[in-house]
Amino acid sequence: MWLDEELFSLESLDDGLNPSQLLTSDPVALLQHLRRRRSARVCPVAVERIHFLPPTQPQKILCAGLNYRDHARETGAELPSSPTFFIRFPDTLCGSGEAIPHPVQSDAMDFEGELLVVLGQAVHGKLQRHEALAAVAGYGIFNDISMRDYQFRTSQWTMGKNFPHSGSCGARVTTTDELPEGANNLYLRTEVNGDRLQDGNTADLIFDVAALIQTLAEVMPLHPGDLIATGTPAGVGFARKPPRYLQPGDTIRVEIEGLGVLENPVIPARLDTVERPA
Amino acid sequence: MWLDEELFSLESLDDGLNPSQLLTSDPVALLQHLRRRRSARVCPVAVERIHFLPPTQPQKILCAGLNYRDHARETGAELPSSPTFFIRFPDTLCGSGEAIPHPVQSDAMDFEGELLVVLGQAVHGKLQRHEALAAVAGYGIFNDISMRDYQFRTSQWTMGKNFPHSGSCGARVTTTDELPEGANNLYLRTEVNGDRLQDGNTADLIFDVAALIQTLAEVMPLHPGDLIATGTPAGVGFARKPPRYLQPGDTIRVEIEGLGVLENPVIPARLDTVERPA
Repeated sequence: MWLDEELFSLESLDDGLNPSQLLTSDPVALLQHLRRRRSARVCPVAVERIHFLPPTQPQKILCAGLNYRDHARETGAELPSSPTFFIRFPDTLCGSGEAIPHPVQSDAMDFEGELLVVLGQAVHGKLQRHEALAAVAGYGIFNDISMRDYQFRTSQWTMGKNFPHSGSCGARVTTTDELPEGANNLYLRTEVNGDRLQDGNTADLIFDVAALIQTLAEVMPLHPGDLIATGTPAGVGFARKPPRYLQPGDTIRVEIEGLGVLENPVIPARLDTVERPA
Repeated sequence: MWLDEELFSLESLDDGLNPSQLLTSDPVALLQHLRRRRSARVCPVAVERIHFLPPTQPQKILCAGLNYRDHARETGAELPSSPTFFIRFPDTLCGSGEAIPHPVQSDAMDFEGELLVVLGQAVHGKLQRHEALAAVAGYGIFNDISMRDYQFRTSQWTMGKNFPHSGSCGARVTTTDELPEGANNLYLRTEVNGDRLQDGNTADLIFDVAALIQTLAEVMPLHPGDLIATGTPAGVGFARKPPRYLQPGDTIRVEIEGLGVLENPVIPARLDTVERPA
C-alpha cells in the first residue's frame, strides 16, 4: 500500500522492519520515496493500524507453474525444460490480512505459497543473468489461490487462477539489497490453521528468478511494477491424500525467510459477487 | 481508433459504411458518440486516410481455444465440454493495416482468423443467455497470431500468444443491431497472399457468444471494452500437411460476413524489439 505521508514510517514500524522493507503498490515511487526519506526523521505507526493493499498498477502478472522439483513430482509432471507461465488479471489481487472469498461454485479451493518478484526496470529482449536480476526492485510473498476444479476443467489454467481477490500479495516488498542474489536459498512455509503444509526452499526452484525473467523478456516487454510469481513447492492441498481444500473460516499463513509473513482469512463469498442481484 | 472530431465521419465513409459501423478504441465512448451524432451533419473522410488502431483500454482480453468443431478435429483434440480460455496482454494488440513483426526467434508464426466480441456492459455472476448477449457492444475481427513453437513448449499457451503486436483487431466494430443475434451464421475466411486457407462459419462454434460470456462471468467480472476472441475454424498453418507458417512479406486478410476485412502485412522484426541495444 502507499501510506499517507503522515502515517508513513520507514524506521520505526513496530516489528522492527528496516528502511528497505516497505509497503507499497508502486515499486518505483517506493524506491524514490525510500531514497528521499532515508535520512529524514520519520514518525512511528503501529503495524496493526495498517491496511495492507495489493499492488494496484501491474501491467503484467505472470505466474510460473511447476517450478519446484518436489511440486512437479507430487503432481506427476515430468521435470520441464522451459518454464510454464500463466496470467492473472490485476483485479484478482488482494493484500495481506484481506479476506479471500471462497466461491460458492467451487469445491476445490487450494493454496500455493510462492516467492513474488516485483520488477523495477523495463526489460525486453535477450538479457544476461545480471541484467535480469538488475531489473528486480524487490521481493514479496504470493499466495496463488487456485480453484482446482476450474483450473483443470480444460487444458488452460486461466479460469481456476482468476477468481476475484484470489491472489494475495505482500505483506511488504523487501528490496534486493536485503536478500541473497535472486532471493536464493530462503525457506518458504505455508500453514493452514497452524498446520504446516508446505516447507520448501527457494534453492529448489527449477528455473530461478533470473531464468524466469530472461525467458519472459525474450517474448514480451516487462515494466516497472510487473509481478512474477515464481511457483510453489510441494504440499499443496490437491496433491495430498486425501486432498485438503480450503474452507470458509480457514486462515492461511505464508512465511518466507527475510520477507515476513502473508496471512489471509478465507470467508464465504458474498452472493452479490458471484450471483446477479435479484 | 478514436478519430478526431474533424475527421470523424459516420455517414459518409467512402466504402459505404453505415453509422453503426465504426472505428474506435473505446466502445462506450463510441456508443455515446454515435447516439449524439446520429442526426448531426458529418464530414467525409477517405478510408485510405485512416490509420486503424487497436482498442487501447481493455482490462481483460480473453481468447477461446478449440472452439470450432473442424479446428478441434484438425488438431486431434476431443470435443470439449467447457470452453478453453487463455489471456492476452493489451500490448499484444495491433490494428488493421499495421505491420505484424515476425519474431526472429520463432520458426512457427501462424494465423487464426476469429470473431471478436467487444463488451459494452459490466457483467459478473450467473447470467441468462439474453443478459450475456445484452452485454455485447459489437463485433469485430481478430487475427490471433500465434508462435506455435513457443505456444506448445509447455502446457500453457501464454508465451506463444503474447508476442508484441501479434493480435490484430478491427478494422471496425459493428454494433449488435446490424447483425444476427450472437453474430451467428456468418462466414469467416482467411487468406494469406490471396490463398484462401480458412473458410468457416460462426454457426460452427462449439460454444457460442452467449455461452462464452456466461462461462467467463461466472468466474470473473467483465467490463465495457473487454474483448473476447471466440476461437478459430479449421485451416490454420500448423495443422496443414505440410505446415504453412507465416513469413516476412506475407499479407494476411480475414473477412467476416457483415464485419468487413482485417488485413495485415508481416514484416521482419526489428532487432531492437527483440534484442537489447548494443
